[in-house]
Amino acid sequence: MQPKQILKEHVAKIATLTEEEFENFFNRFELRSFKKGQTIIAAGDRVDREYFVLSGCLKSFYINDDLKMFILQFAMPTWWTSDFNALYTGAKATISVDCITDAEVLSLSNENREALCKEIHQAEHFFRWRTNKGYVASQKRLLSMMNNDVKHRYEELMAQYPELYQIVPKQLIAAYLGVSRETLSRLHH
Amino acid sequence: MQPKQILKEHVAKIATLTEEEFENFFNRFELRSFKKGQTIIAAGDRVDREYFVLSGCLKSFYINDDLKMFILQFAMPTWWTSDFNALYTGAKATISVDCITDAEVLSLSNENREALCKEIHQAEHFFRWRTNKGYVASQKRLLSMMNNDVKHRYEELMAQYPELYQIVPKQLIAAYLGVSRETLSRLHH
Repeated sequence: MQPKQILKEHVAKIATLTEEEFENFFNRFELRSFKKGQTIIAAGDRVDREYFVLSGCLKSFYINDDLKMFILQFAMPTWWTSDFNALYTGAKATISVDCITDAEVLSLSNENREALCKEIHQAEHFFRWRTNKGYVASQKRLLSMMNNDVKHRYEELMAQYPELYQIVPKQLIAAYLGVSRETLSRLHH
Repeated sequence: MQPKQILKEHVAKIATLTEEEFENFFNRFELRSFKKGQTIIAAGDRVDREYFVLSGCLKSFYINDDLKMFILQFAMPTWWTSDFNALYTGAKATISVDCITDAEVLSLSNENREALCKEIHQAEHFFRWRTNKGYVASQKRLLSMMNNDVKHRYEELMAQYPELYQIVPKQLIAAYLGVSRETLSRLHH
């Protein structure tokens, strides 16, 4: 499917834009391709863009004071990713984003998002519900961190992304769940 | 300050509503008073409302499978709280909300929020940025959970809510940080 069609179907799930409005909407995005392993956002960067995944899989992650990596999100097609704190507040990135596989994304700047929201009421509606869903996903991730039952958290992750086990190295799934690879192997049977 | 004025100043930080629009906006809210200890949302409830705090302090919390309580948020004046997953998706509440002190809130139903967002473009703008800020707070909470440095997390919390140590029982601050009361006493000197 073409990038434009993927974005159109994604937006249509939430908002109703005229053909002309969607033309304007789509034209504010920039198509970018990344290679497996490539960094999109590094901790310390200034962040001015958010990314809508068309193909491939990205990860957003955090390295804590003990140099331990935590995976916040696996960003699959039709997911949005960025360091939203850095994006919205102008603070430097604390979250990094890179590519688990080759990936194609549509990138949108702060300035273009705000212009779209101002010009098109339904664009503002779209981004409100996009963030509402992101907020709920973030709350779920928080609850999953708080819950000690690893088996339950593993099953939740697999229900959310059934294809993940084929795409993502096992050690990254373990880093998402906060368990060792050995524990993960016992869970997946 | 009157509830209407508190809400007006809060909204004006993000959005520009005419007098008439703000009248319509305010009239969709319901003023409610709660006593210290009272439950607003209990796990298992259907959730149809979100709450804007006028006075007092609420907490939102989660009890995990080991019956351990985690505090997600201390909701102080001008904060919004609810179980947003339950609110937005229709799922039953997994998060509970109750009152640490007597509290006054403005409550808004799903139906009224969506009506306001449809009728008033700037109301949609307001709620988009309200949720953007909530999303960023939720991401910060997640990073704070992932970071092992308790002293750093404690200092962040105190910077965010300087008045908290006077208002909230120490054991609740400990439950927010995920440490014992003894560890907390060592941090606060």
